Amino acid sequence: MAETPEPGASTPTGGIIEPRTPKGFRDALPPRALAVERCVEGAREVLHRHGFAPIRTPALEFEEVLTGKGGSESDRQMYRFADPSGRRVGLRFDLTVPLARFVSQHRGTLPFPVSLYQWGTVWRGENTQRGRSREFLQFDFDTLGADSAMADAGIVTVVHEILRRLQAPPFTIRLNSRTLLTNVVRHAGIPEAAVAQVLRVVDKLAKLGHAAVEAELAELGATPEQVKALLAAVEVQGPAGDVVRELQAHGLGSALDDSAQRLLDVSAWVEAAGVPAGACVVDLSIARGLDYYTGMVFETTLNDLPDIGSVCSGGRYDRLTAMFSRDEPVAGVGGSVGIDRLLDGVEALGLATARSTTAYALFAVFDGVPPERYLALAAAARSAGVNAQVYPGVQRLQKQMRFADRAGFGAVVLVGPDELASGVAQVRRLADGATTSAPFDGLPAVLRELQAGEA
Amino acid sequence: MAETPEPGASTPTGGIIEPRTPKGFRDALPPRALAVERCVEGAREVLHRHGFAPIRTPALEFEEVLTGKGGSESDRQMYRFADPSGRRVGLRFDLTVPLARFVSQHRGTLPFPVSLYQWGTVWRGENTQRGRSREFLQFDFDTLGADSAMADAGIVTVVHEILRRLQAPPFTIRLNSRTLLTNVVRHAGIPEAAVAQVLRVVDKLAKLGHAAVEAELAELGATPEQVKALLAAVEVQGPAGDVVRELQAHGLGSALDDSAQRLLDVSAWVEAAGVPAGACVVDLSIARGLDYYTGMVFETTLNDLPDIGSVCSGGRYDRLTAMFSRDEPVAGVGGSVGIDRLLDGVEALGLATARSTTAYALFAVFDGVPPERYLALAAAARSAGVNAQVYPGVQRLQKQMRFADRAGFGAVVLVGPDELASGVAQVRRLADGATTSAPFDGLPAVLRELQAGEA
Repeated sequence: MAETPEPGASTPTGGIIEPRTPKGFRDALPPRALAVERCVEGAREVLHRHGFAPIRTPALEFEEVLTGKGGSESDRQMYRFADPSGRRVGLRFDLTVPLARFVSQHRGTLPFPVSLYQWGTVWRGENTQRGRSREFLQFDFDTLGADSAMADAGIVTVVHEILRRLQAPPFTIRLNSRTLLTNVVRHAGIPEAAVAQVLRVVDKLAKLGHAAVEAELAELGATPEQVKALLAAVEVQGPAGDVVRELQAHGLGSALDDSAQRLLDVSAWVEAAGVPAGACVVDLSIARGLDYYTGMVFETTLNDLPDIGSVCSGGRYDRLTAMFSRDEPVAGVGGSVGIDRLLDGVEALGLATARSTTAYALFAVFDGVPPERYLALAAAARSAGVNAQVYPGVQRLQKQMRFADRAGFGAVVLVGPDELASGVAQVRRLADGATTSAPFDGLPAVLRELQAGEA
Repeated sequence: MAETPEPGASTPTGGIIEPRTPKGFRDALPPRALAVERCVEGAREVLHRHGFAPIRTPALEFEEVLTGKGGSESDRQMYRFADPSGRRVGLRFDLTVPLARFVSQHRGTLPFPVSLYQWGTVWRGENTQRGRSREFLQFDFDTLGADSAMADAGIVTVVHEILRRLQAPPFTIRLNSRTLLTNVVRHAGIPEAAVAQVLRVVDKLAKLGHAAVEAELAELGATPEQVKALLAAVEVQGPAGDVVRELQAHGLGSALDDSAQRLLDVSAWVEAAGVPAGACVVDLSIARGLDYYTGMVFETTLNDLPDIGSVCSGGRYDRLTAMFSRDEPVAGVGGSVGIDRLLDGVEALGLATARSTTAYALFAVFDGVPPERYLALAAAARSAGVNAQVYPGVQRLQKQMRFADRAGFGAVVLVGPDELASGVAQVRRLADGATTSAPFDGLPAVLRELQAGEA
């Protein structure tokens, strides 16, 4: 990954343009791009197993679609401009608003309840934190047209399976219900007008800690008793059954309505679908900042890297299409994997690998051997399932070997004039320099075996 | 696919925002998005077999990177605007210019000769043709740091394998050499100052036909003799050996320099790598509009749909990094699959399919059966390799069956209270309504067999 520092006053001279990316935008070199591919492939595989189908929406949307009527999204620092027709457009800042627009627009065509996914780039011109990306990848999956707890459980199950499939380091899915949390806040005696603000403060508990949240709640006008009661309740976390029992023990029985039963159902059904007990906990402090959530909300944290925040979040939003139609809104529930954030976490944990080729075998090229011979040998290796490349040019062997090493090939096949005459290739394994002989017709099998031994 | 007509003077009223996409931008519903996925997967699979590794570059580049010093790209109608730092940026209009910037910027890190690919969205604000897309997908693959004919042959081989892998309808790869074509133009007596313009006109031969090109050449000041000699030469096409022989027969032996031998080599090596004879022809009229090509150029046309133009084009560009550095430029050769154009072609040929789910089996949900039972049965089916979904809610069976039909499931599993008691599920195949019984523990195998029978 490489990010270019913001250019200073200097400008390129003499007709040469300095090759660099705008601030907040970075290239992915092959090791990172391969990791992105593995993430996307893994997520897709899991989603297909569960019947989710892909959609694609444009990178550009009409500005009014992105901002809504209120236009309160200016803090996301949308990229906005006029299109060639003079209409105001913007780059999408998430995949949820485009999904709501998509579902509203194609409502007559989609077979509800439909499970969809989309992954792609989103843009935010945020200028706040140093090194903050302005372009990043999200992978969203949603079930639309179903307001059931089954749909909620389906999303949480998929979250778990995706992160397992991506070999994410140990993680915990933290579930909550916005409805239940709101009841708890009200039960602590917080005045109705302050509830939304209090939810936003409670949501910072994991990030800021008990004392800071206590202070912020006091600033909002909550009495010490209210703060104490509220924090005692929202700091409860654990298996759903335990949490409900503990709330009852706190005298919060009257705050437990349908939403508590629904959390119990979701937790039980997620386990029935194969998610191990303990992978999912209820954490009453999870509120999610976004106002559009109406029911279940969740976040997923890496146990050894709590500071990077949630790598997969989401929840239920039953009114998101209301801005596009006076018809009954389409109920929805979904999740979003922050692929860049997850990969940054994996890098921080030293789990990333570095290769610049997808091939296992490099066929070195020698003077005096007709190129056709290498091409035919490489084609045979590929037919046997071995990714293979012929060195594309003429170079000293030493340089070809150095290339193989830098790029991360597993083995180099050596066929010089002598080997051509004898019909027996030499195969050098790069990990340890061990050399094997293989007659041309047995070469694909030898390479396949070597490759399997390193997988 | 759905494209929204350009809105007229009407604006949404009453707080409702009309859900629509800007002109030239379209959503992909699941059938199209699934087809895109299949294309990308197929291309990636082939490229990995050949050792190509992915990269990712930002959607936004500095304006100067995209326009170059001259800024002559205005006819591409770039989307340009200021980023939050006030710098002029633009949305990329192809993947080649970003690649040149990337390779220049990371020259010290990349193991040359490196084979890279990138796929993604590009944007062109073109306002000319009706219904023309302003956003489309390209899939590019390039070998950099190698000026050999082996690298050229590698790209053409990959083009062939990708299109075969995507089950493209019958196609022809049309190869040429810009150097050879330029020699032919000069040999016809065209003055040096007019050569570039003449190349652009010759390139339109397939599109406009002989007479129109003849007229355009005359307009450029070519004499009737020059036009005749030139067209006689550039209308030659066929296997490389035949073309070279025919040029010699036209008295063009002196125009045949290294570039002719190189075309012969590339053709021979592509065949050695497994591309059948006849899949690739030399077509002397192929020039490619873009000025950056310096050697081999190629286009690929669908034999039954010549009008949609080339679905995969490319060539050699040995000076593309020169704008970014005074160092020796990095030699490159590459190709680009126009995924949207290819899919439009396949749709036009009636080869597209329509499904809105990736699952084979839908588990219908009945009153009186605990949801856990469905979730566990579906999880077992998935473990056996059957993509499966539980209907996410409570509905009359008729409605669930209609959903299964509309979404394109292959089978519905029926477990009502009776089946739950007996431990035997009913499986209804949607294609013909045939129903099979399966005890719960044998259900995954039954579904797998049904699924295999329909693949």
